[in-house]
Amino acid sequence: MKTIYLDNNATTRVADEVFEAIRPFFSELYGNPSSMHSFGGNVAREVAVARSSMAELLGASPQEIVFTSGGTESDSTAILSALNTLPERREIVTTRVEHPAVLNLCKYLARSKGYTVRWLSVDKFGMLDMDEVKKSISENTAIVSIMWANNETGVIFPVEEISEIAASRGALMHTDAVQAVGKIPINLDRTNINFLSLSGHKLHAPKGIGALYIKKGTRFSPFMIGGHQEFSRRGGTENVPGIVGLGCAARVAMKNFEEENTRVKQMRDRLQTGLLERVSQARVNGHTDFRLPNTLNIGFEFVEGEAILLRMDDKGICASSGSACTSGSLEPSHVLRAMGVPFTAVHGSIRFSLSRYNTEDEIEFVIEETPKIIMVLRALSPFNLATINAACAVQ
Amino acid sequence: MKTIYLDNNATTRVADEVFEAIRPFFSELYGNPSSMHSFGGNVAREVAVARSSMAELLGASPQEIVFTSGGTESDSTAILSALNTLPERREIVTTRVEHPAVLNLCKYLARSKGYTVRWLSVDKFGMLDMDEVKKSISENTAIVSIMWANNETGVIFPVEEISEIAASRGALMHTDAVQAVGKIPINLDRTNINFLSLSGHKLHAPKGIGALYIKKGTRFSPFMIGGHQEFSRRGGTENVPGIVGLGCAARVAMKNFEEENTRVKQMRDRLQTGLLERVSQARVNGHTDFRLPNTLNIGFEFVEGEAILLRMDDKGICASSGSACTSGSLEPSHVLRAMGVPFTAVHGSIRFSLSRYNTEDEIEFVIEETPKIIMVLRALSPFNLATINAACAVQ
Repeated sequence: MKTIYLDNNATTRVADEVFEAIRPFFSELYGNPSSMHSFGGNVAREVAVARSSMAELLGASPQEIVFTSGGTESDSTAILSALNTLPERREIVTTRVEHPAVLNLCKYLARSKGYTVRWLSVDKFGMLDMDEVKKSISENTAIVSIMWANNETGVIFPVEEISEIAASRGALMHTDAVQAVGKIPINLDRTNINFLSLSGHKLHAPKGIGALYIKKGTRFSPFMIGGHQEFSRRGGTENVPGIVGLGCAARVAMKNFEEENTRVKQMRDRLQTGLLERVSQARVNGHTDFRLPNTLNIGFEFVEGEAILLRMDDKGICASSGSACTSGSLEPSHVLRAMGVPFTAVHGSIRFSLSRYNTEDEIEFVIEETPKIIMVLRALSPFNLATINAACAVQ
Repeated sequence: MKTIYLDNNATTRVADEVFEAIRPFFSELYGNPSSMHSFGGNVAREVAVARSSMAELLGASPQEIVFTSGGTESDSTAILSALNTLPERREIVTTRVEHPAVLNLCKYLARSKGYTVRWLSVDKFGMLDMDEVKKSISENTAIVSIMWANNETGVIFPVEEISEIAASRGALMHTDAVQAVGKIPINLDRTNINFLSLSGHKLHAPKGIGALYIKKGTRFSPFMIGGHQEFSRRGGTENVPGIVGLGCAARVAMKNFEEENTRVKQMRDRLQTGLLERVSQARVNGHTDFRLPNTLNIGFEFVEGEAILLRMDDKGICASSGSACTSGSLEPSHVLRAMGVPFTAVHGSIRFSLSRYNTEDEIEFVIEETPKIIMVLRALSPFNLATINAACAVQ
C-alpha cells in the first residue's frame, strides 16, 4: 500500500539532494572539524559552507548561526541564555499555544525557579490580542518567546512587530520558527528578533540537527557547556552530516520556496474545500488567512481523532491529532483548548500538513476516503444523537 | 595519497554495517516515532531495538538508556540532574584531567553557581591517588564525575571502585565513558555507577548521537525539557538514524570486542615499541598497563606538536596533540600538565589512537616516517642545544 504522508509538521522526508550531500560524511569524510590535520580541516570547510547557506535562508550572517541538536535544544538555549544574561528581570512572556519545548520549559521555570510567566491567550482563530501583548511585556520581562507559526493550526504570529515592543522595553525576543522556516519569507536582518530556533527535520534535513540564530550584539550564555566548538557557543563535536544536510536543505528550500507558496498551498486549499464540501459539521481550526501554506487543521465534530487516524492509517494516509510531541498523552490539544474550540470538535480535530512531495492525486484520494471514514465513525460513535444533544446543551 | 587515520579518539569512521542500517531512515522510513500512524510506529520499534542493543553492550536494561545528542549533552544532563535532585549538597568531586565537557561545566558551576569543586590530582602516570579520592568524597558531595578512560592518554580509572565510595557517602556517581565504551569490558549491572555518558561517533556510529545510562532508581531531573520523548527524560524528536546507528554500532562493537583487545592492541604496542626504538628522547605519557588498547601518547622532547602534526599530515597521517575539543587553543594539554609531564615534552606530545580499520602496514609506515619527521624538526627547531640546556636548567 502506498503511503500518503500528510504529517509534515511532525517530521519530513529527507530530500534526495540532502541525502546525496551528506552521504560521504559518514564513512569517507568522517574527520573531526576541530582536528589539526587536513582530513579534519576539509570537513570544517563544509561546515562553514552550510553555515552560510543557513544564514542566507534567514537573512542573517553566518556568525549569527549556531548549530544545535534540534528545535528543543535551540529553544532551551535561547530562553535560558536570556534569563542568565538579564538576571534582574524575573518575567517571561509567552503564549498558551507554544510547542511543548517552550511550554514545558516555562512551566518548569515558574514551578522550580520562581520566574513569573505571562501566558498570552489566543482568540477563536488562534490569533494573539496585540493589546494584551503590549500590556504583558514590561521592564521586568527578560524574554518574550513567541512561535512564528503554530505547529497544529499553522497560524502565523506577528513576531517581527512583537520584537519591536520587546526591544522598546529592553526585553530579549525569541521565536520558535521550527514550522515557519522554509515555508514563509523570513528576513531577520531587519527585525529586532534576538533568537530564532529551527529544526532540520521539519525542513527535509535529517533528525537530530537544528540551529539557533543569535542576533549580533546579543549577550549570550551557552546551554551546552564543553569544548570550544561553534565559536565557544555550543560544546560537543559538530554533527557534520547533520550540519551539511541542514545547509543543503536550506539551499533546496530557497529553490523551492515559490512552489511551497503556490502548488503546495493550492493542494492544501483543495483539500480544505473538498473536505468541507463533503463532510457536515466540520470546521477549520485557526485563521485561514494568517496561516502556513501547508497546514490544514479540521475539527470533525462528534468523532474521536484517534479513531479517524487509525482508519486513515488503514488506507495509508498519515496525519495527526495534536502534535507528535504530545501524542503520548490522551489530553486534548492544548492549542485547540486555548482557542476555545468546542468540546464536540476538539477531540475530532485532524491536522493535515503537506509538503512539496505530495501530489494532486494523493489529495484527491484523501478527499474521497476521509468523508467515508467520518461517516462510518459517526454511525458507530458513542457520540450518538443523544450524546450530541447533551454535549450541545452543555456548551 | 592514502589517509592513515590514527585519530580515533577524536572521531571514528562510521562502520559500513552502521551506514547500511541507517540509510533507509532518511528518505524512506522517515516517520516520527511519536506519531499515531503505523508509518511512525514502525520507526518506534526500530528505536526500541537500538535501545536494547545499547543496553546489552553496557550490561544494563533498556529502560536505563536515554538517547542524547552526544557525550557533552550526556555529561551536562548527569551532573546537573544530580545537583538538582540533591540540592542540599553543594560539592562536586572530579579530576583535573576530565574532558572539557565535564571540566568546563564544573568550572562554570564553581564560578557562577557557587558550587565547590574538589579537583582530584593525578600522578606522573596519569593515575588517581585513591586516598585522595576517599578523602574528597563526603556527605556534602552531590556528584562524583570521573571519566572511565582518559581521551589523551588512554589511562583507565577504577570507576567501579570509586562508585562504591560515592555510594557509601550518599553521593551520586557519573562517569564519562566516551572513550571506554566498546574498547574495554563494561558491566554496569554490578556497579554503583548512577550515570554513564557515551558518544556514538567514538564508536563507529554517526556524529550527533549519544546516550546516557541512568541506573534504575536514580532520581532524575531532565536537562532537555520539552516533549514526552525518551519516557519524558529528554525532549526533542528522536534522532532516528542516529539512534538506529548507535544500536547497530553497539552490536558491531560486541562482535569486534575481541579484535579491539588483541589485533588493535598489538598494533598499538608495535607502534609504541617501533617509535621508542627509533626516536631518542621520547617517552610514553600515561600508565602503560592501565590503558585503553587503542591509545598511545608519546612525548617527543624538544619539538613542537603542531609542527609534527603538519609534517605527518603531508604524509597522510592523521594524529593529534591534546584533544580535538581543545585544539583551537594554543594552551598545552591540561591532562599532560596535570601529570607533570616536563615542559620539554608536553609541547611535543602526540596522541595516536587506532581502530579496527587500521592495518599492520599502516603502522609500519608510521614507524618509518615519524622518526624522520622528528629528526628534521629537531634540526630546525628553536629548541636548539642552547634552548634545551636552558630549559633543563629551569626544570
